[in-house]
Amino acid sequence: MQFILASQSPRRRQLLAALGYPVKAVSVNVDEHVPPTLPTAEVAEHLALRKAKAFPVEQLKEGEVLVTADTVVVHGDTVLGKPADRAEAIRMLHLLSGTAHTVYTGVCLRSREQEVSFTEQTTVHFVTLSDEDILHYVDTYRPYDKAGAYGIQEWIGMIGISHIEGCYYNVMGLPLSRLYLTLRNKFSSICTSPRSIS
Amino acid sequence: MQFILASQSPRRRQLLAALGYPVKAVSVNVDEHVPPTLPTAEVAEHLALRKAKAFPVEQLKEGEVLVTADTVVVHGDTVLGKPADRAEAIRMLHLLSGTAHTVYTGVCLRSREQEVSFTEQTTVHFVTLSDEDILHYVDTYRPYDKAGAYGIQEWIGMIGISHIEGCYYNVMGLPLSRLYLTLRNKFSSICTSPRSIS
Repeated sequence: MQFILASQSPRRRQLLAALGYPVKAVSVNVDEHVPPTLPTAEVAEHLALRKAKAFPVEQLKEGEVLVTADTVVVHGDTVLGKPADRAEAIRMLHLLSGTAHTVYTGVCLRSREQEVSFTEQTTVHFVTLSDEDILHYVDTYRPYDKAGAYGIQEWIGMIGISHIEGCYYNVMGLPLSRLYLTLRNKFSSICTSPRSIS
Repeated sequence: MQFILASQSPRRRQLLAALGYPVKAVSVNVDEHVPPTLPTAEVAEHLALRKAKAFPVEQLKEGEVLVTADTVVVHGDTVLGKPADRAEAIRMLHLLSGTAHTVYTGVCLRSREQEVSFTEQTTVHFVTLSDEDILHYVDTYRPYDKAGAYGIQEWIGMIGISHIEGCYYNVMGLPLSRLYLTLRNKFSSICTSPRSIS
């Protein structure tokens, strides 16, 4: 079995590879605008499905599983995307400081025969961050490629996240345990053992 | 400010260093037997305090903070230590499979002037693990240095832990956000900014 990962994110590639199967990264181009009436909890899976549809299914070989995913950060009713600049990153972290928010990752798995999609959600609680800590993080780590302007695996996640409810890897961009379970249950005909390639 | 970490664990050293201060590792020898009447939730902090007392306080210099810690895995009423051999590691993972358990990390911070200790707890939920996955993990990762026979940051944690309630880094061995907060609040006279050494 081999994963075809339609994502440019090195984090996602690293996470998927950690499952123990070969990963080939490809790129797909999709319009990431979503209908304004779409509930925030459904945005990530909607985009993951759109990415999967943008990949020509006839290019999938036997034993290949296409993986697409999208992660959105929702605070109250607001979807936080990637910060456009330093000021927006600082503003987002001030918003998250001392509060809880929800991270949704939508995943679509597709083989030649079938397609399965799901959404996994994790609640993330930030302590009250000092102005100094926010500025230190933004200027040292430059989180401009991260929805919500933070990485849970980076310094701000270590010092600033008191607790989570849900899957940690989901916040990083891929709910690995749910993905593995889905693979084993729904793609059992092509899912080999990870040990065979270790 | 500098940390003096009384621990031989490379994971703990790596986590502590990620906060952004210099870390010097030292070793202390303590008897790790605890009174059988001690509640399981108090074992970790009890051992962290014992390790702190084993380090001669007069050796601490101005600006140095001694960090000691201990992590215990509790399933039901049973404290799971490090597995003695392959059979015990397999037995522990079968016990954790499909259930929830609690990880307690006790931490003691000590300067020349004061000592503060606390316990942080995280609930960890494992999916039902297959025999194949358990054997693959134990034989590939050899988790003999890990309480409960698993590392949340290793393959088994990625594929097998569906969700947690609490601090992820606490399960790895140090509750970083609580530690940083305690440092900022209780050791403010010696706690410099992490940015100054980055």
